[in-house]
Amino acid sequence: MRVVLIVEYDGTDYCGWQCQPNGLSVQEVMENCFFEATGEKTVLTASGRTDSGVHALGQVVHFDTALEQPAESFKHVFNAVLPPDIKVRQSFEVAKNFHARYSAKKKTYVYRTYISPIELPLKRRFAAQIFGKIDMDKMLSAKKLIEGTHDFAAFCASGSSAKSTIRTVFSIDIERRGDDIDFYVSGNGFLYNMVRIIVGTLLAVGYGKISESDVANAISFGERKNLGKTMPACGLTLCRVEYSEI
Amino acid sequence: MRVVLIVEYDGTDYCGWQCQPNGLSVQEVMENCFFEATGEKTVLTASGRTDSGVHALGQVVHFDTALEQPAESFKHVFNAVLPPDIKVRQSFEVAKNFHARYSAKKKTYVYRTYISPIELPLKRRFAAQIFGKIDMDKMLSAKKLIEGTHDFAAFCASGSSAKSTIRTVFSIDIERRGDDIDFYVSGNGFLYNMVRIIVGTLLAVGYGKISESDVANAISFGERKNLGKTMPACGLTLCRVEYSEI
Repeated sequence: MRVVLIVEYDGTDYCGWQCQPNGLSVQEVMENCFFEATGEKTVLTASGRTDSGVHALGQVVHFDTALEQPAESFKHVFNAVLPPDIKVRQSFEVAKNFHARYSAKKKTYVYRTYISPIELPLKRRFAAQIFGKIDMDKMLSAKKLIEGTHDFAAFCASGSSAKSTIRTVFSIDIERRGDDIDFYVSGNGFLYNMVRIIVGTLLAVGYGKISESDVANAISFGERKNLGKTMPACGLTLCRVEYSEI
Repeated sequence: MRVVLIVEYDGTDYCGWQCQPNGLSVQEVMENCFFEATGEKTVLTASGRTDSGVHALGQVVHFDTALEQPAESFKHVFNAVLPPDIKVRQSFEVAKNFHARYSAKKKTYVYRTYISPIELPLKRRFAAQIFGKIDMDKMLSAKKLIEGTHDFAAFCASGSSAKSTIRTVFSIDIERRGDDIDFYVSGNGFLYNMVRIIVGTLLAVGYGKISESDVANAISFGERKNLGKTMPACGLTLCRVEYSEI
């Protein structure tokens, strides 16, 4: 039986989703918990890696099991042994050909920021501090250049192993409430650090540090140098992954 | 010179504001940081203790110093050495007769809750998990019994050393957004655990576990036994303290 898990985690204390030689990963913790609870060894496959320190509200994970029990009960199996910063919100059976990564059609991330001259104790865990006066209209104009199907080579951290750098960004929604600005970014897939570079770039436009034409040139010619900085991991949360099948 | 600090802290890893023989307090950390930064020993006086694990968005603290520098600069003096979970948002000079505790006229706390069958990794730090179907109308009706000037002896944890148990609750505002319910409670002062017992009591009414008359009797006759449970510390944040002088 193939089972899907919808997983929420606070990524602060983890080196990301995927097992790494240095540092504890969410995957490793979950696989160990499953073995501890059931005695069965399994491999968990997620919709994608999240980087070190990145959070998830709805990471989608699949695994195969020979255990004969209702798929819905695996939620409780995991939660009984998982630490408080990782929990399974749902578990259910899927078709054998479902794949958490390859079947994904749409992913939505939120990047949370707050404007403050000092790093705030009550916000720092799940949002990134930003400074100064930001021109929202400039950001709302620049985000239209990023939406759509483009070669996002310039929006990709070095060291990425992606074969193609063409991706479709379905939408970028920027929500401001007082000093909090949240960026919702939906796409069919993202390159390494792509969401964090998109947000850094929109903020650089909002501060007037770079122009809309810098963004247009980056998309046309793949030039990273005139884009904004990569924002820190703490502000990023994988909200949800959508599939046509489930 | 007497200086006031507006302090924000994530109380998760502290035993509360006040120095305790067992466990690290916010006060102790701040006094040590000040000594480390300036070489001057000082005692910080807060508007009130916050309990172990309780947070503050705007705790008000005063201290006296012989250092000759602008009061505004003490914000930076503290922040340069404070850990990331405690920060000073403002510092300014006040009259010598100002007292963070005795001069306080109004305190506002928020108690944050979320409805979920499992404890959620992204909410658990600053909100308390609650269960099931809640009747908002019953809570909105019961909160009116608590607002006003009453003897709150029944809403006080045992072990409290308060001389009088009469307090005025100016207002209780209950805000619901989806599965999140926030309780804003303002008063001229609060007994030990009083806000957490008020919220536990309103939730008990909302669940139908106790009736409005149980609440009325508790206020009239000081009977604790028919009230709700004391809610956990993690959901409580001291929002602001108001004074007539500053």
